[in-house]
Amino acid sequence: MTLTASVVGASGFAGGELLRLLSGHPEFELRQATSREYENRTVGYVHPNLRELDLRFSDPADLESVDALFAATPHGVSMGNVEQYLAAADTLIDLSADFRLGSEAAYDEWYDGHTAPAYLDAATYALPELSRDGLADADIVAAGGCNATATMLALKPLLDAGLLRPSDQVVADLKVGSSEGGAGGGAASSHPERSGVVRPYAPTGHRHEAEIEEQLGLSLSFTVHAVEMVRGAAATCHTFPTGGTAADGGIETPELWSAYRDAYEAEPFVRLVAGGGGVYRYPEPKAVAGTNLAEVGFAADGERVVAFAAIDNVMKGSAGQAVHAANLAFGLEETAGLTQTGLHPVGSP
Amino acid sequence: MTLTASVVGASGFAGGELLRLLSGHPEFELRQATSREYENRTVGYVHPNLRELDLRFSDPADLESVDALFAATPHGVSMGNVEQYLAAADTLIDLSADFRLGSEAAYDEWYDGHTAPAYLDAATYALPELSRDGLADADIVAAGGCNATATMLALKPLLDAGLLRPSDQVVADLKVGSSEGGAGGGAASSHPERSGVVRPYAPTGHRHEAEIEEQLGLSLSFTVHAVEMVRGAAATCHTFPTGGTAADGGIETPELWSAYRDAYEAEPFVRLVAGGGGVYRYPEPKAVAGTNLAEVGFAADGERVVAFAAIDNVMKGSAGQAVHAANLAFGLEETAGLTQTGLHPVGSP
Amino acid sequence: MTLTASVVGASGFAGGELLRLLSGHPEFELRQATSREYENRTVGYVHPNLRELDLRFSDPADLESVDALFAATPHGVSMGNVEQYLAAADTLIDLSADFRLGSEAAYDEWYDGHTAPAYLDAATYALPELSRDGLADADIVAAGGCNATATMLALKPLLDAGLLRPSDQVVADLKVGSSEGGAGGGAASSHPERSGVVRPYAPTGHRHEAEIEEQLGLSLSFTVHAVEMVRGAAATCHTFPTGGTAADGGIETPELWSAYRDAYEAEPFVRLVAGGGGVYRYPEPKAVAGTNLAEVGFAADGERVVAFAAIDNVMKGSAGQAVHAANLAFGLEETAGLTQTGLHPVGSP
Amino acid sequence: MTLTASVVGASGFAGGELLRLLSGHPEFELRQATSREYENRTVGYVHPNLRELDLRFSDPADLESVDALFAATPHGVSMGNVEQYLAAADTLIDLSADFRLGSEAAYDEWYDGHTAPAYLDAATYALPELSRDGLADADIVAAGGCNATATMLALKPLLDAGLLRPSDQVVADLKVGSSEGGAGGGAASSHPERSGVVRPYAPTGHRHEAEIEEQLGLSLSFTVHAVEMVRGAAATCHTFPTGGTAADGGIETPELWSAYRDAYEAEPFVRLVAGGGGVYRYPEPKAVAGTNLAEVGFAADGERVVAFAAIDNVMKGSAGQAVHAANLAFGLEETAGLTQTGLHPVGSP
Repeated sequence: MTLTASVVGASGFAGGELLRLLSGHPEFELRQATSREYENRTVGYVHPNLRELDLRFSDPADLESVDALFAATPHGVSMGNVEQYLAAADTLIDLSADFRLGSEAAYDEWYDGHTAPAYLDAATYALPELSRDGLADADIVAAGGCNATATMLALKPLLDAGLLRPSDQVVADLKVGSSEGGAGGGAASSHPERSGVVRPYAPTGHRHEAEIEEQLGLSLSFTVHAVEMVRGAAATCHTFPTGGTAADGGIETPELWSAYRDAYEAEPFVRLVAGGGGVYRYPEPKAVAGTNLAEVGFAADGERVVAFAAIDNVMKGSAGQAVHAANLAFGLEETAGLTQTGLHPVGSP
Repeated sequence: MTLTASVVGASGFAGGELLRLLSGHPEFELRQATSREYENRTVGYVHPNLRELDLRFSDPADLESVDALFAATPHGVSMGNVEQYLAAADTLIDLSADFRLGSEAAYDEWYDGHTAPAYLDAATYALPELSRDGLADADIVAAGGCNATATMLALKPLLDAGLLRPSDQVVADLKVGSSEGGAGGGAASSHPERSGVVRPYAPTGHRHEAEIEEQLGLSLSFTVHAVEMVRGAAATCHTFPTGGTAADGGIETPELWSAYRDAYEAEPFVRLVAGGGGVYRYPEPKAVAGTNLAEVGFAADGERVVAFAAIDNVMKGSAGQAVHAANLAFGLEETAGLTQTGLHPVGSP
Repeated sequence: MTLTASVVGASGFAGGELLRLLSGHPEFELRQATSREYENRTVGYVHPNLRELDLRFSDPADLESVDALFAATPHGVSMGNVEQYLAAADTLIDLSADFRLGSEAAYDEWYDGHTAPAYLDAATYALPELSRDGLADADIVAAGGCNATATMLALKPLLDAGLLRPSDQVVADLKVGSSEGGAGGGAASSHPERSGVVRPYAPTGHRHEAEIEEQLGLSLSFTVHAVEMVRGAAATCHTFPTGGTAADGGIETPELWSAYRDAYEAEPFVRLVAGGGGVYRYPEPKAVAGTNLAEVGFAADGERVVAFAAIDNVMKGSAGQAVHAANLAFGLEETAGLTQTGLHPVGSP
Repeated sequence: MTLTASVVGASGFAGGELLRLLSGHPEFELRQATSREYENRTVGYVHPNLRELDLRFSDPADLESVDALFAATPHGVSMGNVEQYLAAADTLIDLSADFRLGSEAAYDEWYDGHTAPAYLDAATYALPELSRDGLADADIVAAGGCNATATMLALKPLLDAGLLRPSDQVVADLKVGSSEGGAGGGAASSHPERSGVVRPYAPTGHRHEAEIEEQLGLSLSFTVHAVEMVRGAAATCHTFPTGGTAADGGIETPELWSAYRDAYEAEPFVRLVAGGGGVYRYPEPKAVAGTNLAEVGFAADGERVVAFAAIDNVMKGSAGQAVHAANLAFGLEETAGLTQTGLHPVGSP
């Protein structure tokens, strides 16, 4: 029996990606796509890749009853509509930050407070490679954010293997695509201004640190740069692990391979890429654009271990992650609807 | 019973795309991928998107027996190896120009002659939307070239409807991606030189004209520009049709919609995009990158009718077209293995 | 004695380019840069390349008295403020379309009418390579638009040499950068949507045709495509000249060289690029980005002559052209302040 | 009296940039441009921006006598030709790494040894903002490398102010353009492979560390990523300074402004950009493309101070730096020939 799904905020980038994934999903039937701005327009009017989809945007005030409601609205919206969503759906899969953090206090510190803190306990953070606990029964699933996802995937194996300790120094230097800014736009995201940049826009104190601290118990330094691509988030994590056992403290490459394989060998969406030959020797966004894959890698350098991760921010950093979490929430095959392959050659994704 | 397939010249761009398509094809089993240069390397060594594929390049001198052999080698190679290919496979699907034209004389005029002209009669040109004749029994299938494909898809409906006559004036102005140059590279295709160009590189007298003349009986003017993208071929055909029935000779938009719908309504890989609202009002490569779709459109302007077509040159202009033709040659469902959806948002594909 | 200049609408792209040119001009002293939106901000706040300039935007309601007032406002604004401008300056150099056409009727047909038609006679169209007549005494100079400039530079020599007749068939196929849309932006110009396109946005009936018809007496077909670059306008003009003297009507390359040299040999801002070897064999925008140069070229193809031109739309298509015209209007050395050299290597300009 | 100059290796990217700078330099007369590969071709054949330059490449075996010889050849060449160069010129300005390091041992460790170690003592490292000592009389000037230049400009003020100690933790994360790879090309630099990347290619142990250690006495961790642009090098230096005087160890923004102003206020080629409003709030390569400027900035984050620098790698990271050093070596005005202004708007430089 097919499960039904709806997408709220379906005219945005993550919303459109959900439409793409759900319309091709073997187990979900896409029933509704809402958008205030484009009510009654075909979904193809906004998403040209979905012109063959026979579906029109509808008013979010009239939500159909579905098994799974995917909310792809800007931060602050889901928390205001959560009761309406839970009335319409068995499970709410939220792509915003509204249910990612564990306490009202965290929202007071990092965001503008929370309007429905009572629901925070019912929410389960979703970065499945980190933990699948609680996803199977979740009423509210909070898909992890793109920068946090890339960063945590890069670091997790070092922590799990005890090589990196929570008190060790970690600097995450991120390079992200323009779709991270959402469909809203603004002066800085107009093509003449945004094209070809290497632009630090969050030099310090980024909200994604909150997620990472809660999930990994790790405090880290974060700097985000906008670069020339539409999709993609690449994390370079400079770590100074003190948990290695070698006499001189340095960690060798074989030990790193061990740690990363232990962490990810069984993971369907993680691909280890670390050294070797050819052109593509370390993780990069081009290689995974359009897919739910994360490339993860590492390099040893004396006291430093550099850990890399590259994802498609609209997929593994957002919509793909949400569908992955939904597969787990509904007891489906984990990779259902997420078997897309990347492209080669491909340009600036 | 599964059909078997092999790809010769599998380390190039079209070859890699064939590996992507065939490895996911429900009816074909990919048995061999050859490459002299990368013999014994995993296919993922060259094509990072295919790292999960458990397959190594092998020596093209040792071809396995298969049902379908896809040749993705540079022009001039297939004609030299055709006997070896036909010994190994029931059907040869060639992606080069070696079997596209109908006569040895044509190769003397447009290329450097032909070394196996006896096989030209056995070859069937493959642009299915133009004609499916002869594909079902073909021994040799010659997949149409990317620039010719885009151009002919744009023009066919005008010819079929009798609006455009073979003697009418037609100018095809093309904009293409860097992958058209193949994986070989050269000074002009290095990133610092090729990046950001609008560069006429075939101002006149392009080989694709030969294909078009043979297939459509139409003589036309052709100019090709390299532009900033890796995948994509966009044709803008400026036509001055004299077959319209209106008193003043002009052709009106409803008549054009009629012609294009008649030609393509039933075609699974053609999407009509002509005017309307929103951002994506006419055919463009971004909307179809990674898919086998062609967007086709038109605009009326007094005596002139502008016909547009946009494809992914590695897909509908090459590998996708080859697999489509193979589906027809083997009596499979036409869209088998070719149901990929495009992306939105997406950058320079 | 130094001449004084001001720029109205100085926070936009053409306005900022005027600031760059005038601040480095040996004969002009930049006295004022106006912007309603950024009043009191430093010019470097909007134009990061001009951070060293000690100047703040001021209120356009308080115009200083200057010799030359450059208006870089959107279409429709100058015609509404022309009296105020002429009260403040001896000479108005307008970058918009407001004074380019010759009659009120033309504005009724192509634009939304004209609010100060009495001033049209006092205005002189400025594409110096076309004609310098009337520029020396002009009260109002109307700098030619970018698409029209590129197109006319490509065609002029053919007309002058009598090879192309006004009734001959001409199709202009243009490829332009995102800065053509101005600094205002909009959904279609946000980076995720605008990046990597080959997008026809003016398939037919473009306003630039009006300018070309008036200036060259030539009726032509026009199609404009947005492509991936910020600066640049490239015109490919497909012409079918009937004025050649050869028996078969075809025009040979030596005859074309003659025509183009006659037209441009003495022109400081036109560079002929037609064939030859190396990577850069025909006009392209990258080669002239940041300069006031136009590359112009051609190729013969039987009945067809393809004429190319490439400019930087913010320079020769706008601000550079305006300064060139001002140099002529004030009897200065023609190339004053316009001696910038392009870059190599360079990316997507 | 004009000084004479020549450029050896003039067909490469840095060589071409030197031609651009020297041909417009008020004090230098460009006498010769050598290239084995393009001997007798006009310089414009390779560098389209220099088509107006009346100069042909000549054989490097026949060097003219000049005051200044600029060597823009790959690493390893100058050291082999140094005697020939010093016979032809009073001053050798070398753009390669061949004379940057102080000892033969350093070359044994970081490069492939040195073939003319006797000349190392006569060489003066040239990053003028770091030190002008020894440049005035230099026989051999070794222009600093691009990645080292960007990194050192970012860090110098922190060291000078005693905020950062040589033993403190520093991680430099670089993002660079494709021209860094030189004109030679290779598989990884072909447009289809290099386009749109965020590709770590030097995860650790980069040669530029050697220069930085020698110049600043600072040991640091280095990771370099190729990103989508042709020109540009952007350094993000994550530092953990322990030299601050505050009780809690943190360094506040006013203290940073002090340090950076002290270091750079009088420097003609350094522009401080740190916070503020608008779109361009931190250093970025687009803002300085084509100029000899470096944008430098910083942000305080508790224990961490992030220091940024952005340059054009072909200018301040290579040719511009060389000309700046030559101005100092010959006692000319420091900014002679280096007064170019950047562009806005501009794309991927």
